[in-house]
Amino acid sequence: MKATVSRKAHFNAAHRLFNKNWSFEKNDAVFGKCNNPNYHGHNYELIVSVTGEINEETGFVIDVAILKELIEVEIEAAFDHKNLNLEVPEFESLNPTAENIAVVIYNKLKPKLDAALELEITLYETPRNFVRYSGD
Amino acid sequence: MKATVSRKAHFNAAHRLFNKNWSFEKNDAVFGKCNNPNYHGHNYELIVSVTGEINEETGFVIDVAILKELIEVEIEAAFDHKNLNLEVPEFESLNPTAENIAVVIYNKLKPKLDAALELEITLYETPRNFVRYSGD
Amino acid sequence: MKATVSRKAHFNAAHRLFNKNWSFEKNDAVFGKCNNPNYHGHNYELIVSVTGEINEETGFVIDVAILKELIEVEIEAAFDHKNLNLEVPEFESLNPTAENIAVVIYNKLKPKLDAALELEITLYETPRNFVRYSGD
Amino acid sequence: MKATVSRKAHFNAAHRLFNKNWSFEKNDAVFGKCNNPNYHGHNYELIVSVTGEINEETGFVIDVAILKELIEVEIEAAFDHKNLNLEVPEFESLNPTAENIAVVIYNKLKPKLDAALELEITLYETPRNFVRYSGD
Amino acid sequence: MKATVSRKAHFNAAHRLFNKNWSFEKNDAVFGKCNNPNYHGHNYELIVSVTGEINEETGFVIDVAILKELIEVEIEAAFDHKNLNLEVPEFESLNPTAENIAVVIYNKLKPKLDAALELEITLYETPRNFVRYSGD
Amino acid sequence: MKATVSRKAHFNAAHRLFNKNWSFEKNDAVFGKCNNPNYHGHNYELIVSVTGEINEETGFVIDVAILKELIEVEIEAAFDHKNLNLEVPEFESLNPTAENIAVVIYNKLKPKLDAALELEITLYETPRNFVRYSGD
Repeated sequence: MKATVSRKAHFNAAHRLFNKNWSFEKNDAVFGKCNNPNYHGHNYELIVSVTGEINEETGFVIDVAILKELIEVEIEAAFDHKNLNLEVPEFESLNPTAENIAVVIYNKLKPKLDAALELEITLYETPRNFVRYSGD
Repeated sequence: MKATVSRKAHFNAAHRLFNKNWSFEKNDAVFGKCNNPNYHGHNYELIVSVTGEINEETGFVIDVAILKELIEVEIEAAFDHKNLNLEVPEFESLNPTAENIAVVIYNKLKPKLDAALELEITLYETPRNFVRYSGD
Repeated sequence: MKATVSRKAHFNAAHRLFNKNWSFEKNDAVFGKCNNPNYHGHNYELIVSVTGEINEETGFVIDVAILKELIEVEIEAAFDHKNLNLEVPEFESLNPTAENIAVVIYNKLKPKLDAALELEITLYETPRNFVRYSGD
Repeated sequence: MKATVSRKAHFNAAHRLFNKNWSFEKNDAVFGKCNNPNYHGHNYELIVSVTGEINEETGFVIDVAILKELIEVEIEAAFDHKNLNLEVPEFESLNPTAENIAVVIYNKLKPKLDAALELEITLYETPRNFVRYSGD
Repeated sequence: MKATVSRKAHFNAAHRLFNKNWSFEKNDAVFGKCNNPNYHGHNYELIVSVTGEINEETGFVIDVAILKELIEVEIEAAFDHKNLNLEVPEFESLNPTAENIAVVIYNKLKPKLDAALELEITLYETPRNFVRYSGD
Repeated sequence: MKATVSRKAHFNAAHRLFNKNWSFEKNDAVFGKCNNPNYHGHNYELIVSVTGEINEETGFVIDVAILKELIEVEIEAAFDHKNLNLEVPEFESLNPTAENIAVVIYNKLKPKLDAALELEITLYETPRNFVRYSGD
């Protein structure tokens, strides 16, 4: 029997949306106020969902305490109270949109999980905007 | 890489559930207090989810500002503070259940999106009841 | 020792905001789209808060099961799935704004409670707009 | 046209996580404070999602009032204010993890639904931990 | 200038409501299913609110990191994943109603805070039932 | 009859907590990771609460559409997608803690309201941390 276990986490960060290869004017036209060179920020709400077989002995797909710890070590320690553009190496040349942050989180967590487990990342940039990525 | 971008929106409306081809008694038996001829109403919470490739230059599947504007023009302007039965043409002969409202929203938004994008509509009629429709 | 016990409840209703003594034009200028003669509606979220001494034998200010029942009988049965303007006598000549609905709820519940208990009504008309009334 | 209708429900229960075939020490190592022999408890939030064709006459996949009643009779009456380990027969020899509770709920509800309807169970054990099961 | 700083926390626990001096029948009549001798449980959501002067040098009423730590040490360590009746000494002869739990939390935290600070405890026993206590 | 009308709003911003008159070390000791010189950020949720007499002709304490507009012009336009330290003049020499942001919002809105109305500001810096200020 296969089930999906999800764990919510949280980090606060500053960011700026822009494409380094574009002029300020083009960035302004595409990213608007998100292109503020002084940065703005968000409380990112993260949901990490892991799908796999329910272990018959434990009744767990994955121990949520292990999942919580993994998110803390790999994601919260790297992203929380950080400036994503300046302090998170993955965004040195990658625009930190919600879509790209979700991809980076997926790529950081996937190799740490048993290969038989599927992974899906849901990331709320604001309570009204969120994205989902599952490695496709 | 494919991701899903979701945007939440909101509209308030009055409605009445009934089938015009049925007697009042049959409508009452099937729709109960939702068949009140004087109408009742809801704060509908809408989630519009768009799935597609992440654009390499922008980092967006779709600019959420464009999606927000599209929902305002196509859905909020047409439904907000309206009586769905009396003032929204799509429900002249279609019962405005949550399922049917989701279908109507899907059909209004789909042609406005790039054909390569998939669309899913989630509609909360109350905080405890919601529906999902994705064109199947 | 005094504490406050709160219970959340919920009702859906249609309403229209207008002053019967005003012209349609004046109502339109003041109430805008809320003056739609075909009505619109909301999921009202209600919080009933009762303050009083903690009973030493039960550990209760008021048994929340009794409070829940009182709200069902006095408020939900009267307001849920109703058109407030047409079907709730208190609004025959009273504009059903959130403020006035809170006052009506207060006035219906207060006499049903032990006189030593204080009462406060919080009413969400939408997730973003709410009012509070406590008999002052 | 196929849509999914979801209904939220709620029950409070006590439980203890452990494997009867293991020593207390092994249970402690695997389940930590969840292995407390005096039990702890949760407010479980349940979402029952039913997928099927929208009926052309009613506009419903399933009448949500019927779904609500089914959840009350089959799940809330059996689980609410209960000790899952001691009072719910399905957990006599099954560890009441969120995964296993979701499977039990699925197995109780599935035979009560029209065979053409698909079922998915989402169960929040806490606001931060939840599971999903759909019979795979 | 005086402001109020609030911090949310969370603990899960089992409990049973009853008065040791009453017969089982009387307890059953008053506490109903909450009197289940096998216990039931809740995810308690706690809001600790501290009111005082804003310090001119820090801009804080109280450092929320200190408040978070205080709640972890005094409340979460004592209550989380516990059976309140059997494992929390304050409830040995005090019925663990939400009102009484709020009073106990207030009494544990108040002496740990600067005497100039006012304290208010809000405790959600379920998402629909909550209590408030501020030492009156 | 007096009631309180509340309106929720939202802005995203970057900030850094520090006291310009202190060494980096002292700031680090007091503000920890909030003192990151590259900034971090939040989705601030704002509740503006206005208390006053219910107008007999309108049934309003204040028209919530006017309150919404006032918050947009005075607060959202000034704070949203901004770096509070660098771009909001009130924080040039004032540490942008949640407490101080609430005071600044109060001071910006109070003179725009009828003098007979009382004002209270509630500001969520994260879903778990919030402050309240009402001019005392």
